[in-house]
Amino acid sequence: MIASPSNAQVKQVCALCKKSRYRKETGLFVVEGPKMFQELPKDRIHQAYATEKFAGDPAHASMLRGIDRLRLVSEDVLKAMSDTQTPQGILAVARMYRYSLADLKNRKGPALLMILETIQDPGNLGTILRAGEGAGITGVIMDNNTADIYNPKVIRSTMGSIYRVPFVSTDDLPKTLASLKEQGIRLYAGDLEGRKSYDREDYTLDTGFLIGNEARGLTAKTKAMADHLIRIPMAGQVESLNAAIASSILMFEAARQRREKS
Amino acid sequence: MIASPSNAQVKQVCALCKKSRYRKETGLFVVEGPKMFQELPKDRIHQAYATEKFAGDPAHASMLRGIDRLRLVSEDVLKAMSDTQTPQGILAVARMYRYSLADLKNRKGPALLMILETIQDPGNLGTILRAGEGAGITGVIMDNNTADIYNPKVIRSTMGSIYRVPFVSTDDLPKTLASLKEQGIRLYAGDLEGRKSYDREDYTLDTGFLIGNEARGLTAKTKAMADHLIRIPMAGQVESLNAAIASSILMFEAARQRREKS
Repeated sequence: MIASPSNAQVKQVCALCKKSRYRKETGLFVVEGPKMFQELPKDRIHQAYATEKFAGDPAHASMLRGIDRLRLVSEDVLKAMSDTQTPQGILAVARMYRYSLADLKNRKGPALLMILETIQDPGNLGTILRAGEGAGITGVIMDNNTADIYNPKVIRSTMGSIYRVPFVSTDDLPKTLASLKEQGIRLYAGDLEGRKSYDREDYTLDTGFLIGNEARGLTAKTKAMADHLIRIPMAGQVESLNAAIASSILMFEAARQRREKS
Repeated sequence: MIASPSNAQVKQVCALCKKSRYRKETGLFVVEGPKMFQELPKDRIHQAYATEKFAGDPAHASMLRGIDRLRLVSEDVLKAMSDTQTPQGILAVARMYRYSLADLKNRKGPALLMILETIQDPGNLGTILRAGEGAGITGVIMDNNTADIYNPKVIRSTMGSIYRVPFVSTDDLPKTLASLKEQGIRLYAGDLEGRKSYDREDYTLDTGFLIGNEARGLTAKTKAMADHLIRIPMAGQVESLNAAIASSILMFEAARQRREKS
């Protein structure tokens, strides 16, 4: 059992929680708590850590069955490793996913992509993945100013969708958008000045929604690459919606149209 | 100028930020930052506080014009008063709103009510108000286990909608629901077991959406009072959506239908 918070493995887990660069270097990320651990595909587990109390609880036996890379740690050590104030007894270091653009549309139906430019709030990014899985999106594309998807706050707020929704980070968003357009994917930019209401467009074919930064929206360069500017009509004095809310309204409108058509 | 953090007014503002009961006793709440201050109707201001630097900045002259109840405070005092780590130079103590149920439907068109049972996350509550104003809701009803709407975190996340969307807190939700039903308002409960998809119901007449607790959903008692159980069809392995996301999808579907009809 690891009982010392100065153990090298403890320090590594801490660094994986806190440092995006260290995650990138190692290709590893941290998953916390029973729900996120249970949903993590077994072949992703690099190393699991549990407290004696957690591992000894019969209620957790099925969750831990067949996990050979499990080390017991003291409560204090788990707390030192954890990104949360009240760790829930179990934590895993997992191997990152590697997707290519082809993985984001390689499905039976038409593509439905969320394309995020500089979404900075980890909660927003995680919520877009979670709601996106529910709406049936086929993938997420992020520019490199978007929050690190392996940030523990993002992971938590995905509620497990991070394991199931493919995503790609791009260093050159305009180039990626050009490639999507060549493949026939129609790009819609949510924009306050969009002429057409979002529910007046057809999202039943290959579709990508462009969502911009929480405060500044999309850059002019990215907006210029959209095939259509759309707006969500707004009552009252509301200027804009939270990025995750706006994304969800668009994604579920696409899902609604696709159900109607099928 | 108030320069001592132990001044009685400083202590009162701190207590108003932190204590729901003290807010209820005094009928006062705290609003922070230039955006929220600017949108606060002038007749709501009980007392405003600004740093010398903020008040002296010519860019803020129009915002402060005609505000007679303004006291200057030191940077340290504002920080002591503030609920945030980085206060933005201005803060106001404001008088609470008092609405009755009649205010929530007293508009030209049909009612659109959000009825919240034990929504506990302040960010969710604030986001529902903000998105709700955008969707054109006519009011919010909350049971008394829902987060305090005057919590500074709620206020911030409403982005000003708290000043414009009427709301009522009820000690007896079933009684309130019965009264709404008598008035002909149709109640729809978001429910994982709802038979009909949310987009198959008609929300163009007087409508209320029932939204339950983030983890447990609606209580059986409340659900039983709904006229219809509706579900948001979900792809993938997503069990449920965040309460603010689910609320927004329903509110904007109602807005969409009302636009189609008009």
